[in-house]
Amino acid sequence: MTSEIITIGDEITIGQVIDTNSAFIAEELNKIGIGINRITSVADNKDSINRALDNARENADIVIMTGGLGPTGDDITKNTLAKYFGSTLVLNQVVLDRIKEFLGSRSMKVTDRNIKQAELPDNCKIIMNNYGTACGMWFEEKGKIFISLPGVSYEMKSMIKSDVIPEFKKRFKLPFIIHKTILTNGTAESEMADRLSSWESNLPPGIKLAYLPSPGILRLRISGTGNDKSKLEKEINKQVNELYKLISDYVFGHEDDRIEEITGNLLAKNNLTVAVAESCTGGKISELLTSIPGSSAYFKGSVVAYSNEIKTKILGVSENSITVHGAVSEEVVKEMAEKTLKLYNTGFAVATSGIAGPSGGTDTKPVGTTWIAVASKNETFARKYSFGEHRGRNILKASFTALNMLRKLILTTIEKQAGYN
Amino acid sequence: MTSEIITIGDEITIGQVIDTNSAFIAEELNKIGIGINRITSVADNKDSINRALDNARENADIVIMTGGLGPTGDDITKNTLAKYFGSTLVLNQVVLDRIKEFLGSRSMKVTDRNIKQAELPDNCKIIMNNYGTACGMWFEEKGKIFISLPGVSYEMKSMIKSDVIPEFKKRFKLPFIIHKTILTNGTAESEMADRLSSWESNLPPGIKLAYLPSPGILRLRISGTGNDKSKLEKEINKQVNELYKLISDYVFGHEDDRIEEITGNLLAKNNLTVAVAESCTGGKISELLTSIPGSSAYFKGSVVAYSNEIKTKILGVSENSITVHGAVSEEVVKEMAEKTLKLYNTGFAVATSGIAGPSGGTDTKPVGTTWIAVASKNETFARKYSFGEHRGRNILKASFTALNMLRKLILTTIEKQAGYN
Repeated sequence: MTSEIITIGDEITIGQVIDTNSAFIAEELNKIGIGINRITSVADNKDSINRALDNARENADIVIMTGGLGPTGDDITKNTLAKYFGSTLVLNQVVLDRIKEFLGSRSMKVTDRNIKQAELPDNCKIIMNNYGTACGMWFEEKGKIFISLPGVSYEMKSMIKSDVIPEFKKRFKLPFIIHKTILTNGTAESEMADRLSSWESNLPPGIKLAYLPSPGILRLRISGTGNDKSKLEKEINKQVNELYKLISDYVFGHEDDRIEEITGNLLAKNNLTVAVAESCTGGKISELLTSIPGSSAYFKGSVVAYSNEIKTKILGVSENSITVHGAVSEEVVKEMAEKTLKLYNTGFAVATSGIAGPSGGTDTKPVGTTWIAVASKNETFARKYSFGEHRGRNILKASFTALNMLRKLILTTIEKQAGYN
Repeated sequence: MTSEIITIGDEITIGQVIDTNSAFIAEELNKIGIGINRITSVADNKDSINRALDNARENADIVIMTGGLGPTGDDITKNTLAKYFGSTLVLNQVVLDRIKEFLGSRSMKVTDRNIKQAELPDNCKIIMNNYGTACGMWFEEKGKIFISLPGVSYEMKSMIKSDVIPEFKKRFKLPFIIHKTILTNGTAESEMADRLSSWESNLPPGIKLAYLPSPGILRLRISGTGNDKSKLEKEINKQVNELYKLISDYVFGHEDDRIEEITGNLLAKNNLTVAVAESCTGGKISELLTSIPGSSAYFKGSVVAYSNEIKTKILGVSENSITVHGAVSEEVVKEMAEKTLKLYNTGFAVATSGIAGPSGGTDTKPVGTTWIAVASKNETFARKYSFGEHRGRNILKASFTALNMLRKLILTTIEKQAGYN
């Protein structure tokens, strides 16, 4: 079974709104083994919609559309589909009653436009909308399925989950698909590809690897398709285990994990605390840590020490260290971490000092040069990185790398303590 | 002139990644009067890419593609296009040198895969990539333009802005379109719509208003299309001036302005400095301020005081204030701002204290309750806001609002000083 998705709306094709509906539908279909050939976005325009339908039906068994079902004049999807499928619009009393009830419960008037929304094609199955006034429509023609849903995300999502997916599962014998995603920090895509090349080229048929890079984080996705569920699960698990072995020094999580959440959970579970001293990251590490609900349990706070004066005055880094080694140095970043640990009285501290750019670089310390330190009560560890030229990306790379260094230090500290007990 | 956009990548068609590239490209093309017929996303698959190209060229003068140009095995766009346009791949020495230089400056090895990235079709114009190793390609065939760009957002964006758009402007006689965007903080879309309703309904034909809301910032875009450039400019300016008058208390900038940049520039120009004390915003204000290159000239640093202990110990807020009024109060947030001003010895200080959620709310101080204070040497001003229930949005709203309060205090301070002279 293959499908195409068509999202309809001027706001998408003029770039005013990012189409997030497609990714949701694609993910839901993909989970049950329905492949997506193509996603198309078109304007609220009859010819564009017709052309998208003509193109989509050529290669897909299922076409799912969203958008253009609202009550206003620019919403033309329903009338366009009615013409496309040779339907007559008839007032559906059940739908009208639900619209009246829905609007009534929100103390909203039922307008003529709303009544028109209850006029639906006579040759489609109606998908009820529990969260709005626009019904979904399910057409079938020449063995192909065409489904039209509202563009409002939560209305569409509810219909996909409660109506569309269950119906597909009932009607089709679907292949079995598994995706596993492994999250890494600390290496670039090309280096990773080199390390994995012989493993990758020996992957059995039906199993594929994809590299999904973003600043500071490289995701690896292994996908497998097959008809024998248990055999496929076994094979995927075997491959994932082999992959882990090859790159375990870079792996920090899997699937939708976030490094700030993993590190935060690790602190929370072990009743540990952390504080941060940020120079080049300028508050980004703190922002990431505090983006997690409940972070106040383990995050005590941070000092953004952007000037040398503050590094000495508030953190207590020695002026001499800064003069001798420079602010971007192993000595200073270690001192920053150690002083922060004491100032905030935490179990762990993280510090960054680097040249985010675009200016401030020198021959010996070009833009991107970044020192990161992590400290516990027993040890301090620092490492130098050369990130690149792009300020925003440097800040992200330094922040994710710092959080991963923190995560590793927490883990080794816990292991050591367990060893002593 | 009409265009189509094709984004290429398995991660899009399986729904793992939301395609944000299309919206950016669509907006940039739309600004210069090139309409977008359709946006298509396809997998990293030869047949899908070929079919998308065949479909797109039928109706568009310009086809812009992104994705599939990376160094790894799943990136097949370049080879697919070479076959589609009957090209031979030849090693481009200039490109190879740039790749070597690019990777060298990051202490990264040049792998065989990277060298392969310098092998480019012999019948396209190369678009250089200043931020990565994948070049863009500009093909022309039968009067139609086909442009392939990397999928990495900032690489693609730079090429669109520096190469693609300027070339289109040079080559085509485009209709005349004006967009003016006004940026506001401090009011919701529905309140704004009420305030503007009579002005909006009196807009002359050809001129339209769009509301573009995001957390803490509401953009208003006035668009006009016409053939008489000077007449249109006059009319748009007249309407923008009227709009300004209606909402001047909310306006902080226009077009692509960022509140953190406007506020930063204001500080830089007047040789002023700022420090921040963040509780509920957790580092977001600092992160915004330091995202601007050159911010070290005016941003001294900040304390993220997530616990009450740190508010007293590092900032020196009186324990008594916290006990009597609570950490989320006018008294405490004002003290935070005033102490920060002294600690960092700056001209201005900003402080936030609130309940970001999802937990921590009470009957009298529900989630979203946020106090923000701004202080100068002469005055401290605080205001309470009730933002909402969503943690991430609350942090953004509080941060943008705090920066806008800072901006206003700087302006009134400068005005007062000018008055004294």
